[in-house]
Amino acid sequence: MTPKHPSESLTVLTDLVLPSETNPLNNLFGGELLARMDRAASIAAGRHSRRIGVTASVNHVAFNKSIPLGSVVIIEAKVSRAFKTSMEIYLDVWIEDRQSGKRTKANEAIYTFVAVDETGRPVEVPEIIPETELEKQRYEAALRRKQLSLVLAGKMNANDATELKALFV
Amino acid sequence: MTPKHPSESLTVLTDLVLPSETNPLNNLFGGELLARMDRAASIAAGRHSRRIGVTASVNHVAFNKSIPLGSVVIIEAKVSRAFKTSMEIYLDVWIEDRQSGKRTKANEAIYTFVAVDETGRPVEVPEIIPETELEKQRYEAALRRKQLSLVLAGKMNANDATELKALFV
Amino acid sequence: MTPKHPSESLTVLTDLVLPSETNPLNNLFGGELLARMDRAASIAAGRHSRRIGVTASVNHVAFNKSIPLGSVVIIEAKVSRAFKTSMEIYLDVWIEDRQSGKRTKANEAIYTFVAVDETGRPVEVPEIIPETELEKQRYEAALRRKQLSLVLAGKMNANDATELKALFV
Amino acid sequence: MTPKHPSESLTVLTDLVLPSETNPLNNLFGGELLARMDRAASIAAGRHSRRIGVTASVNHVAFNKSIPLGSVVIIEAKVSRAFKTSMEIYLDVWIEDRQSGKRTKANEAIYTFVAVDETGRPVEVPEIIPETELEKQRYEAALRRKQLSLVLAGKMNANDATELKALFV
Amino acid sequence: MTPKHPSESLTVLTDLVLPSETNPLNNLFGGELLARMDRAASIAAGRHSRRIGVTASVNHVAFNKSIPLGSVVIIEAKVSRAFKTSMEIYLDVWIEDRQSGKRTKANEAIYTFVAVDETGRPVEVPEIIPETELEKQRYEAALRRKQLSLVLAGKMNANDATELKALFV
Amino acid sequence: MTPKHPSESLTVLTDLVLPSETNPLNNLFGGELLARMDRAASIAAGRHSRRIGVTASVNHVAFNKSIPLGSVVIIEAKVSRAFKTSMEIYLDVWIEDRQSGKRTKANEAIYTFVAVDETGRPVEVPEIIPETELEKQRYEAALRRKQLSLVLAGKMNANDATELKALFV
Repeated sequence: MTPKHPSESLTVLTDLVLPSETNPLNNLFGGELLARMDRAASIAAGRHSRRIGVTASVNHVAFNKSIPLGSVVIIEAKVSRAFKTSMEIYLDVWIEDRQSGKRTKANEAIYTFVAVDETGRPVEVPEIIPETELEKQRYEAALRRKQLSLVLAGKMNANDATELKALFV
Repeated sequence: MTPKHPSESLTVLTDLVLPSETNPLNNLFGGELLARMDRAASIAAGRHSRRIGVTASVNHVAFNKSIPLGSVVIIEAKVSRAFKTSMEIYLDVWIEDRQSGKRTKANEAIYTFVAVDETGRPVEVPEIIPETELEKQRYEAALRRKQLSLVLAGKMNANDATELKALFV
Repeated sequence: MTPKHPSESLTVLTDLVLPSETNPLNNLFGGELLARMDRAASIAAGRHSRRIGVTASVNHVAFNKSIPLGSVVIIEAKVSRAFKTSMEIYLDVWIEDRQSGKRTKANEAIYTFVAVDETGRPVEVPEIIPETELEKQRYEAALRRKQLSLVLAGKMNANDATELKALFV
Repeated sequence: MTPKHPSESLTVLTDLVLPSETNPLNNLFGGELLARMDRAASIAAGRHSRRIGVTASVNHVAFNKSIPLGSVVIIEAKVSRAFKTSMEIYLDVWIEDRQSGKRTKANEAIYTFVAVDETGRPVEVPEIIPETELEKQRYEAALRRKQLSLVLAGKMNANDATELKALFV
Repeated sequence: MTPKHPSESLTVLTDLVLPSETNPLNNLFGGELLARMDRAASIAAGRHSRRIGVTASVNHVAFNKSIPLGSVVIIEAKVSRAFKTSMEIYLDVWIEDRQSGKRTKANEAIYTFVAVDETGRPVEVPEIIPETELEKQRYEAALRRKQLSLVLAGKMNANDATELKALFV
Repeated sequence: MTPKHPSESLTVLTDLVLPSETNPLNNLFGGELLARMDRAASIAAGRHSRRIGVTASVNHVAFNKSIPLGSVVIIEAKVSRAFKTSMEIYLDVWIEDRQSGKRTKANEAIYTFVAVDETGRPVEVPEIIPETELEKQRYEAALRRKQLSLVLAGKMNANDATELKALFV
């Protein structure tokens, strides 16, 4: 399989925050944002793998800024690293101010998707070659995140997680 | 107000067709597509005018291809022409094939939005200067569409609709 | 096939505007109204043709009045003209004032539906015979709208659109 | 307050059964039908009282026929009897067969609504005068249903429920 | 089939009232509560019968207290009596006050479900043996409610409804 | 503030998987599960803090088993550790087999919520005292997770994260 660049899976989902999607403080409900990011990540995974992408895990999502009713929300999803049958998807979420047009970063999220065939069985995906500086950083960190996830799940010994361990010693 | 280019209002909404959005033939329900296009058009209108955009009319939407369950749908909306307080938004809708990644044009649509202030009163919007060949064609045709709409509503005499009339005589 | 009257396809959809269906100005969201009209038009098309009706195009929808939260909205859809396999559906939308019970016209819309069989292939539909004065006017105008749509799509020469051309010369 | 006829509150809600509204057997989900009937009943209550109608109780709903995906469902709601501040709403639900156009009764339901002012306090409603034979039967039965509901809630002695008691002795 | 206790079918559905589920008075919409109760009752019926449960009727639902936006709503559903192929489900609904944590009874409801096989045909269900005082009361009353429902539907003579009749004579 | 036990915030959300909530493989859509867990976690956070709970981050969610259409899904959420103004919520998700009644673990998730007042400002929450063995394990691990999250965000030096570091050296 020919390797791909992160930009080839870039998925942009621009949408409004409607009243049906807010919490009692009139901000976008956390669960609704998680669902929208899942849809965008699923498309990015499909663009990289040309297969159905199934959510394997949500690695980390920080909700740094609340997103008020009526906002324009822009979700950008890109594959940050590909493993054998799985892909890490990195999402950036911005709010766009209507009056000034300025974008503020609302939060980031990392999802892992597995590529499956029509019967739901995992299939291999192409490698990824990062291009920009940010893509390279995320590519490197993805390996540490995978190790961390395996260590926490008891599927890898902490001492074998070379890249992750380097952070602490 | 400084004039703007169509590209400054470009809005991309990439999303999936989920089972809750299909008709009995398992294709995207027409009403759901109309609602998504309305959301994208509303954001494009807001990006051009920096105001709240309210749907004034849907001028024409042709559903040339049905969009099956599980498809990736890409809606692109851009302001094609600005009048005093209203804007014509031109939308292109594509389906992306998962296996080949190829995009097929599913349909086009034209919406008109009015820019309003917080009390709902119409406010002026910037002019628009088309750049690409396609943008220029749509800009020209927008005037004829506006004339047609005024003629059909009985608010303009057919003989005064110079550009529209030129099509027929 | 026995011809039918527009009244035989009359479809009434009376419903409320709930908080989940409003925009940031607390009025019925344009996209939600488009979706409701599509459902009503689809039933009217089915009543005329006794087949599945699939949205072919939305010819024109003018949103003349905003519809506030809590309103009672009445959508009436009727087939206004039948062509070989397609039907023009004319929709009238009213708001009913709770205190006085008075109805105000909110907007009109024109949709085109195609009748299809279970495999999605177009099938013929019965002719229509208008009865009331309004039905007759809409029946006549439907032909001009069809010609216009063909001319704009480049599928008919403007000079052959006799009825439409008569408006301008 | 001038008394009214049941026909003055007649509310018709014609709509489709879409995939998002079905249960695992591919029939209309009971909960969704209950919600649609509640909306129709709420409008009928508003038409009789010219006030906001709030659901007080659902007296009885029998689901005699399951309603398959893709069906056209017609809900008709009418006030069957008015008490001091409350109204009994009688609903008839039909399925319309697409091919034959024939209507089959799917089920009946009885809801009770209370008319309230903007602060939520109950307000008086006009009396009702039944006209057709069916309206008269339902009007008589409504009193027995109210007595039954009071007896079951322990707010009325079974011996004082004269009309209800007559059924059993 | 081994008889079961009501506690074996206990189903708890704790959820929030979000803005998309409220009526114009900002309280939980009656129809939405009916739908949620139907889902909980359907699970309780499945737990008792180990079959698909289909709503047969809603016997009585009293909305005694309105449930404001942002509330925590707790629905508890339990089978109160089993007949040959049907089950009566008794539901208790509470609102939980956020500040004090105190629960207030919002309303009760009684649904009847029929157990069906994969083709939708009714199948037998286990008997039920009530344990607590409240379960015993509801078990006894369930028989009277079934008789009442048969009498009102004209399927049973009032004089044969021994337990029900005892209330009135 | 009096410390509390995890069991005091236990929140159970039992619900069905309906057709509108599935992906193209007919399993529960990842985004929908994330949203449901967010609602349950939000209630658990409110029960511990007696305040509004706002999603701060989703620390980890592993989707180990897909959840098919028609399943009964049980979400249990409990506060696992309280910090100054934030709480870690641990969620366990089970699928219940209809025929056998047996529960299978579908996945686990960890969310962090912040308690806020009516204006959205963070407020202090009670401490938590774990009771069962599992609660104690999760309580200990929560501190390492918090350190990890601070290290990854660059807000804490890896060498100061004593408990986390102990895993690797």
